[in-house]
Amino acid sequence: MASRIAGRLAELKIELPTPPAPVASYVPAVIAGNLLYIAGQVSAATGKVITGKVGADMSVEQAQMAARTCALNILAQAQAALSDLDRIRRCVKLTGFVNAAADFVDHPKVINGASDLMVDVFGDAGKHARAAVGSSSLPLGAAVEVDAIFEISA
Amino acid sequence: MASRIAGRLAELKIELPTPPAPVASYVPAVIAGNLLYIAGQVSAATGKVITGKVGADMSVEQAQMAARTCALNILAQAQAALSDLDRIRRCVKLTGFVNAAADFVDHPKVINGASDLMVDVFGDAGKHARAAVGSSSLPLGAAVEVDAIFEISA
Amino acid sequence: MASRIAGRLAELKIELPTPPAPVASYVPAVIAGNLLYIAGQVSAATGKVITGKVGADMSVEQAQMAARTCALNILAQAQAALSDLDRIRRCVKLTGFVNAAADFVDHPKVINGASDLMVDVFGDAGKHARAAVGSSSLPLGAAVEVDAIFEISA
Repeated sequence: MASRIAGRLAELKIELPTPPAPVASYVPAVIAGNLLYIAGQVSAATGKVITGKVGADMSVEQAQMAARTCALNILAQAQAALSDLDRIRRCVKLTGFVNAAADFVDHPKVINGASDLMVDVFGDAGKHARAAVGSSSLPLGAAVEVDAIFEISA
Repeated sequence: MASRIAGRLAELKIELPTPPAPVASYVPAVIAGNLLYIAGQVSAATGKVITGKVGADMSVEQAQMAARTCALNILAQAQAALSDLDRIRRCVKLTGFVNAAADFVDHPKVINGASDLMVDVFGDAGKHARAAVGSSSLPLGAAVEVDAIFEISA
Repeated sequence: MASRIAGRLAELKIELPTPPAPVASYVPAVIAGNLLYIAGQVSAATGKVITGKVGADMSVEQAQMAARTCALNILAQAQAALSDLDRIRRCVKLTGFVNAAADFVDHPKVINGASDLMVDVFGDAGKHARAAVGSSSLPLGAAVEVDAIFEISA
């Protein structure tokens, strides 16, 4: 446990989940130069998808927790790809899709559930650019899906 | 005002807005290598969000103007991040989300409001790859959201 | 026909379509450093847009074929941009938007129609990170839209 970020995760009492297997013909992570692309991770914890239509049958607070599980899955995938999260220099970009009712307006609050985790874990290096938008439907009925780009050291 | 792009903006009589503060836990711009990622900017002018459901209570023409405000906010964020827009080598990619009715089909025309501004300001270097899609809902009820990637000089 | 990928396409009996012209103010492909960004390609074959609302008036199987046409258009654009697809080192990321009913859950299966083609053509180098999400509407009523990032050799 000499890793700085592993230590930070322990401090935050965060245990990363087993990285979910892709539900389709792709891979969870690709490195291109100094960028690590993580495939869209749906809201799921301990193998169970967190479903819901935010603003209809799910509250903003519940959806924030769902977004947090997306971010945990992103970190789990990054760890599997890099072996050591200390190789991450910066969280560059998150794109968050919220399975939301047509009149929903609080997407930013929902995706904060993912963004805040990045800052908790990486500090200033966790501060990222972001897009948060509504989707009329998401894979497996998930409440939230988030993908990510990290800058890594060579 | 020795800056080439600042001069071009003046020529076009474009005054960049104050870059909007993120409504959530993220930053408006991140540089990774030669790429500048700008967070999703919603349609808003002088602090007021331009709301609407395109194809229902908003016309394509109104939505184009809304998309243009997204692009102005993107340029304002880029300027704040880079100090000088002359550091931009190329507009690489825009992703435009249109808060649209389910039977709407003119997303490309709407996002042209953002794309055309890039070409007006940067000329050939403003020509970018793009995705334009429909969203069933957007943050704060915004009519349009656009994020951007630029290539910059070191 | 010394090109390896051109040979592979012939082997698969895949003839790339004429790359569709953008329906708006942008370009189909931009190279930034070692990354090639391909603009969102809608489902269209021989100039005709494949329209539909997946899960309502279109089946998953039909939508997979629609997604495959997006991928063919992506390859056609990449070929036009690079002259030789052998310059592609890796398919890095696909983002797939499915024009879907609000209760649709099989986006991953749909976008496999695009992902599988990348793997068929490029082998391991075709394995990419991916996001698959639902859109309430897409340009021209298209059933599917996919954009792409490739890593290329200099």
